[in-house]
Amino acid sequence: MFFYADNMMNFAFAESLDDDDYIPGGYGLFGVPFDSTTSYMAGSRYGPKAIREASYNFESYNMRFNKDVSAVCYDIGDVQVNNGNYMATNMMIKDTVKSLLEMDLKPIAMGGEHTITNGVLGGIYEYDEDLYHDMSIIHFDAHFDMRDEYMGEKFSHAAVLRRLHELKPKDITQLGIRSAEYDEFEYVKSHDNINYFTSYDIKDNIQNVLNYLEDLENPLYISVDIDVLDPAYAPSVGTPASCGITPFELEDMMAIICKKDVIGLDVVEVSSNTIGDPTSVNAAKVIYDFLTHKS
Amino acid sequence: MFFYADNMMNFAFAESLDDDDYIPGGYGLFGVPFDSTTSYMAGSRYGPKAIREASYNFESYNMRFNKDVSAVCYDIGDVQVNNGNYMATNMMIKDTVKSLLEMDLKPIAMGGEHTITNGVLGGIYEYDEDLYHDMSIIHFDAHFDMRDEYMGEKFSHAAVLRRLHELKPKDITQLGIRSAEYDEFEYVKSHDNINYFTSYDIKDNIQNVLNYLEDLENPLYISVDIDVLDPAYAPSVGTPASCGITPFELEDMMAIICKKDVIGLDVVEVSSNTIGDPTSVNAAKVIYDFLTHKS
Amino acid sequence: MFFYADNMMNFAFAESLDDDDYIPGGYGLFGVPFDSTTSYMAGSRYGPKAIREASYNFESYNMRFNKDVSAVCYDIGDVQVNNGNYMATNMMIKDTVKSLLEMDLKPIAMGGEHTITNGVLGGIYEYDEDLYHDMSIIHFDAHFDMRDEYMGEKFSHAAVLRRLHELKPKDITQLGIRSAEYDEFEYVKSHDNINYFTSYDIKDNIQNVLNYLEDLENPLYISVDIDVLDPAYAPSVGTPASCGITPFELEDMMAIICKKDVIGLDVVEVSSNTIGDPTSVNAAKVIYDFLTHKS
Amino acid sequence: MFFYADNMMNFAFAESLDDDDYIPGGYGLFGVPFDSTTSYMAGSRYGPKAIREASYNFESYNMRFNKDVSAVCYDIGDVQVNNGNYMATNMMIKDTVKSLLEMDLKPIAMGGEHTITNGVLGGIYEYDEDLYHDMSIIHFDAHFDMRDEYMGEKFSHAAVLRRLHELKPKDITQLGIRSAEYDEFEYVKSHDNINYFTSYDIKDNIQNVLNYLEDLENPLYISVDIDVLDPAYAPSVGTPASCGITPFELEDMMAIICKKDVIGLDVVEVSSNTIGDPTSVNAAKVIYDFLTHKS
Amino acid sequence: MFFYADNMMNFAFAESLDDDDYIPGGYGLFGVPFDSTTSYMAGSRYGPKAIREASYNFESYNMRFNKDVSAVCYDIGDVQVNNGNYMATNMMIKDTVKSLLEMDLKPIAMGGEHTITNGVLGGIYEYDEDLYHDMSIIHFDAHFDMRDEYMGEKFSHAAVLRRLHELKPKDITQLGIRSAEYDEFEYVKSHDNINYFTSYDIKDNIQNVLNYLEDLENPLYISVDIDVLDPAYAPSVGTPASCGITPFELEDMMAIICKKDVIGLDVVEVSSNTIGDPTSVNAAKVIYDFLTHKS
Amino acid sequence: MFFYADNMMNFAFAESLDDDDYIPGGYGLFGVPFDSTTSYMAGSRYGPKAIREASYNFESYNMRFNKDVSAVCYDIGDVQVNNGNYMATNMMIKDTVKSLLEMDLKPIAMGGEHTITNGVLGGIYEYDEDLYHDMSIIHFDAHFDMRDEYMGEKFSHAAVLRRLHELKPKDITQLGIRSAEYDEFEYVKSHDNINYFTSYDIKDNIQNVLNYLEDLENPLYISVDIDVLDPAYAPSVGTPASCGITPFELEDMMAIICKKDVIGLDVVEVSSNTIGDPTSVNAAKVIYDFLTHKS
Ligand SMILES: [Mn+2]
Ligand SMILES: [Mn+2]
Ligand SMILES: [Mn+2]
Ligand SMILES: [Mn+2]
Ligand SMILES: [Mn+2]
Ligand SMILES: [Mn+2]
Ligand SMILES: [Mn+2]
Ligand SMILES: [Mn+2]
Ligand SMILES: [Mn+2]
Ligand SMILES: [Mn+2]
Ligand SMILES: [Mn+2]
Ligand SMILES: [Mn+2]
Repeated sequence: MFFYADNMMNFAFAESLDDDDYIPGGYGLFGVPFDSTTSYMAGSRYGPKAIREASYNFESYNMRFNKDVSAVCYDIGDVQVNNGNYMATNMMIKDTVKSLLEMDLKPIAMGGEHTITNGVLGGIYEYDEDLYHDMSIIHFDAHFDMRDEYMGEKFSHAAVLRRLHELKPKDITQLGIRSAEYDEFEYVKSHDNINYFTSYDIKDNIQNVLNYLEDLENPLYISVDIDVLDPAYAPSVGTPASCGITPFELEDMMAIICKKDVIGLDVVEVSSNTIGDPTSVNAAKVIYDFLTHKS
Repeated sequence: MFFYADNMMNFAFAESLDDDDYIPGGYGLFGVPFDSTTSYMAGSRYGPKAIREASYNFESYNMRFNKDVSAVCYDIGDVQVNNGNYMATNMMIKDTVKSLLEMDLKPIAMGGEHTITNGVLGGIYEYDEDLYHDMSIIHFDAHFDMRDEYMGEKFSHAAVLRRLHELKPKDITQLGIRSAEYDEFEYVKSHDNINYFTSYDIKDNIQNVLNYLEDLENPLYISVDIDVLDPAYAPSVGTPASCGITPFELEDMMAIICKKDVIGLDVVEVSSNTIGDPTSVNAAKVIYDFLTHKS
Repeated sequence: MFFYADNMMNFAFAESLDDDDYIPGGYGLFGVPFDSTTSYMAGSRYGPKAIREASYNFESYNMRFNKDVSAVCYDIGDVQVNNGNYMATNMMIKDTVKSLLEMDLKPIAMGGEHTITNGVLGGIYEYDEDLYHDMSIIHFDAHFDMRDEYMGEKFSHAAVLRRLHELKPKDITQLGIRSAEYDEFEYVKSHDNINYFTSYDIKDNIQNVLNYLEDLENPLYISVDIDVLDPAYAPSVGTPASCGITPFELEDMMAIICKKDVIGLDVVEVSSNTIGDPTSVNAAKVIYDFLTHKS
Repeated sequence: MFFYADNMMNFAFAESLDDDDYIPGGYGLFGVPFDSTTSYMAGSRYGPKAIREASYNFESYNMRFNKDVSAVCYDIGDVQVNNGNYMATNMMIKDTVKSLLEMDLKPIAMGGEHTITNGVLGGIYEYDEDLYHDMSIIHFDAHFDMRDEYMGEKFSHAAVLRRLHELKPKDITQLGIRSAEYDEFEYVKSHDNINYFTSYDIKDNIQNVLNYLEDLENPLYISVDIDVLDPAYAPSVGTPASCGITPFELEDMMAIICKKDVIGLDVVEVSSNTIGDPTSVNAAKVIYDFLTHKS
Repeated sequence: MFFYADNMMNFAFAESLDDDDYIPGGYGLFGVPFDSTTSYMAGSRYGPKAIREASYNFESYNMRFNKDVSAVCYDIGDVQVNNGNYMATNMMIKDTVKSLLEMDLKPIAMGGEHTITNGVLGGIYEYDEDLYHDMSIIHFDAHFDMRDEYMGEKFSHAAVLRRLHELKPKDITQLGIRSAEYDEFEYVKSHDNINYFTSYDIKDNIQNVLNYLEDLENPLYISVDIDVLDPAYAPSVGTPASCGITPFELEDMMAIICKKDVIGLDVVEVSSNTIGDPTSVNAAKVIYDFLTHKS
Repeated sequence: MFFYADNMMNFAFAESLDDDDYIPGGYGLFGVPFDSTTSYMAGSRYGPKAIREASYNFESYNMRFNKDVSAVCYDIGDVQVNNGNYMATNMMIKDTVKSLLEMDLKPIAMGGEHTITNGVLGGIYEYDEDLYHDMSIIHFDAHFDMRDEYMGEKFSHAAVLRRLHELKPKDITQLGIRSAEYDEFEYVKSHDNINYFTSYDIKDNIQNVLNYLEDLENPLYISVDIDVLDPAYAPSVGTPASCGITPFELEDMMAIICKKDVIGLDVVEVSSNTIGDPTSVNAAKVIYDFLTHKS
């Protein structure tokens, strides 16, 4: 009846979910507007809104990959967060992810700070522990996020990968790293199932990195901290770090891993607060490209 | 199933509309993100988003009026606009309004520039011409918007009330006016069924204005150009004008007319581009207060 | 001694503290850059920096009160906060306040979100429980902050005064209120030792309020949520509410209570992110005026 | 002739000046984009551009004063400033003012920082010393600007009125003051030909101030530091001061003195950096209203 | 003669035009502050102002090309636009262009949205249809702008090159493309006289593109949608697209085509709203470099 | 001793200086918040604050150089500047630098505009003239800054290197240049002891530049005008210039010269006005990397 009325807040290439009438095997997209543990600059709570907004800027034909975007994707809205309470928020994310998996929909999460990845992968872990142990985690970030704790907190954005490693995935690959504390660097180097490539490695010889990624075995989980990009391309992040990678390089790496069996994806640390900010455009592009590859 | 998932973009105190299961006699809220004819500063296209966002800042108990907000209101989303094409956009607004009226829902529109009021009242006119002729229009604005044309355009934000007057409503009352061209001032003064109170009149003797409003007969239509407020309270508008009214004064006047039989309401010219901007807070308050009065 | 205190730029009219050589009986000023439980807009973590910055904008002679600012005040820097962990941060605030009181310095806190008031008054409570039970709390705010809990959290900015009331101060006076949930309103009305004046009460008859304040007995504690001001005067706050009070009105009320025996003061919810923002100018003014009265 | 004048966008109600064909007895408007001595926040260099831009927001019929704007006014552009060199810039302003006076055009200057007033009145002084000694200076400001020196500088924005007083005008009236150093306050009180009204005096009894202004004898010079307005109405100024006057109050005072014999006018300290900022709207209004009174 | 042209600040290296005394064979520069059909983010109406402002940032000696900027260029101001009315605005642009061509001045236009290119080339078409059919159009853009229509509009920024192609120029070359709808991609591929190079083609082998451009035959028309640059270099555009070209690459390509016989140039979609924004600096550079080549 | 130094927040990896107990042979860091001669956009007065703020964003382990940051560095605060008075400010900088050198601490200055380099090197010159004549100056900048004068001023940001050259250092190397006036270009080319590499030279063959730098003899002084970076990486500068170098390239060049005997370092023209702005992150990185190399 309201032919002209537009349903606003879905990601541009996603539909609303009708529990009784949906296509299993697709993707369930949700936002987590949570940034309580951020140490430097807050604002990633606006990430889900910013990414959805930016998604309307894309056209349906993806020139780079010569395909229309047609993967089945449902935008189920935002998880209700509990500001200042990481544990409660984490539980809500896990429940949401488990519900999606039960419906045979794979999770795509839009942060929010990086701690939300604990919730997404925690949900996968609780849904199917074997799957978790069998999985390779691909982690794009300027930072290792491998601290034992940060300012006394075990569940901090700076410790998120450490917590995930303790749950024993098959292995973790960290891409674009360029900032560290010495202790976490030692931790990374002392574990055989953690590999990393700095932004310098990527800039100097991306083909080497692409070959490495090509050889990875299924299944995968992908976590993209948008601060992996240079601040020129992603200025609105909680902890900007110079000498980052470019969107071309991110696209090249994603092009290889997206073709594999990906259990879940998250894009985090988007703190855009103006419409059209390149940070959210590049973040939306990660999801847009992923959905293209899955089309 | 997704217990934690939140449906984001509705106005805070409104629900989504299910055509098959709704309560007639309530309100239908919609946005019109259109600002193509704006002459000075564009940006009111962001108004609907900004107003909805700001609505989440309010609490359900309205202290001033000692009531909880409980009026039945459905947020049907945004009308699809045709940027750069006023006539096409206007038709879409009219169709939406007529559909709402047919469902026995009264329209509440969030602009968008002031020309959208032509669409809302045009829809009412086409739905029930007699009703239109029987109606008093209450117009809050810094400007008369009574020009014959503006930069050669008959359908300009600066001419919107002139077009409405030509359709012959019972009368028009303009409140908060403080800027004019001489010709439109002459037009206003030469018509018996147009009355106005400047912001100076309101500041000097609001009781006089309140008495006038108390005496108005039903039915009414209310159009609020948010630039009626002083730029201190509404800095993000297309044409800011000094020496405006205060939110207290707007609240006092609205308190009287909202209690009457109001056929429709619009709030326009909100150009907020940052979250928490007072312009959108004050605009959301107009709708929040209206819904309180109707609770 | 101030293990958690970090070294930063001093407030303009304060000195650094040398533990071995200071004047007892003065004031100890500190910041708490904590905003983890904020529900709507984060950013009050920048408050201490913004208020200190704005303090350099004032001149040493206070025209309104005809005095030079000469009270003894030490700026001990910022309390180290634990982002995302309210309980840990609260403990640090309490320890800092107790250390100050042991040195015979009265606390002045710059927030950060309103929950930090729990820490300041919690420190006073733990230092001298009798003093707490004997004290009147003066609370300037747009909101009661009297909820039992907020989104499941007992220690939320929206519940801060409820927690303080449960610790049994002599009484609480709330000034400038204009937004509420029904339940907290009921709680307020049902307790004899909680009084409130809305912003409407203040606007309509400030003399009545001033008389009330004049009659209050010592000692007092003052908590200023800067959102008590209208958004025109304090646009950068977490939860802006229309129809607030003016800086003139705040100054008039403060002029009376500052002359009494004030145990402590806090100014919270300043989220300024640009230099010269009126929010931080008005917040710095509260402390500047207080120090004038104590000169 | 106007060797230093640079060509820019005209003020909305002004024309370009053709030296060979103009109407004597009118006004010569110019900008001085100079802010080198500003101590707190720079940016008034953008003032002339901001004020001209804002002027296009006004309509030709002035409702408050029931007149069309038709005074003869020429916008001769911006005086060429020498950043970091006050003395050179001052000389250029003086030359420009003398050229205007020789053409029988009265100067209207748009700052820039308040030191530019030294140039405008210095030009009048050099053109006709007797006129200067015969003149009353009306000074709207939050600050006395009566320091002997500021940070070692005799020619500082904080000392501008002191320098002007030393040149012996008939008298100086300072309006809206609310911030001071003790020494300059003493200086003001110790001179019979300096009078002042604080913003509190104006708020409490404006009629008293209006009567005083009504009684002033000709000729006058008017200097408006836009920080005389409360930061709610003029947020973008170099040294914002709380508890300022309102645009209504400024309009009321200007309405009286503009009707007298005004030798020159300046509006300074406008640091707007966004289009539509209330600071520049209110500043443009001062000139717009002045030109209305002279129509 | 330039009935529609409005007087504004000149581009830094241009003079005002005196119809009776000018040098034929030079360039006529004008702005078109029109953005009514923009679908995503408005703001290119500020483009002409932003580009002129940024031009003052350049020095007269062009190091890259080892030349002083000395081409004859007249800035005739802004064409008067009719907000919300594309057809009227288009006619004004065409008239302006035809007037310039009659005076033997070649047009350089500063947008405004991309639709203004229809006006510039439409003016050339009406002035000399044969010239149009003989001309190669060089189009820098992230988007093809080759849709048949966009949201029902034939004259949309997304359809501008389609309309121009229908007028039968010799050929069209599109450079930097990276976003498309499938239908327009099909249209491009199905026409022999449309060629394109994506941003990936340029990044991977710019020498190939430079050779192609070197071989183009005269005369040429150049249209630069500034969104051809990556958002890192041009963040303030209506529809930002990741993985764009760099200013070095744009400079290299322009260096070759500017040396040829260029009939006209436009730079569009600049939506800068802060002084010094890289978008306007890079846009001004296109014109600055062009004028260098023609010196 | 540091009479002019004001107390502020320390740079993250620096300590406060205790004159009686410090380690000679380290570095003395200070800010100079001065921007009075800036011709285009002011704001570098906020540079010291912005750089210190950004320094808290770095981690202590420097991955690129495989070292912890442990060089001895004291942050002595900001030199007191005299706004609008270059000569007085310059004298204060020189006195501060001479005091540092007498304590055997090497100066690291954070601007402020580029003229402050005159003060730093002027202090070194007055402390040890032979050292100055023996020194190579390494100058990163988009501009030569070699004008004889600028707008009549000998001591302008655009003439700073000319003044330094006149004091006869051994030689000057200018890196990243891409903008010039013809006269200064001639001056540079006509002096054998001035060498330069444009940003194009660096982009096309950085190895050639690195070899040149490797061959430079001790001692060195390094001055970094942050506008040497492309505006994508440093958008907030006084005179942005397109086609600049990248942070990777700056890091590569700094890596070679930092290992040599560096007498002093300055980083200037940072005009960031928002927290997390890439300009200040990249500026802080220059100092962070320098201190790493010296660890
Ligand atoms: Mn990170
Ligand atoms: Mn991370
Ligand atoms: Mn209006
Ligand atoms: Mn209107
Ligand atoms: Mn509050
Ligand atoms: Mn509160
Ligand atoms: Mn002043
Ligand atoms: Mn002032
Ligand atoms: Mn485009
Ligand atoms: Mn285009
Ligand atoms: Mn430079
Ligand atoms: Mn420089």
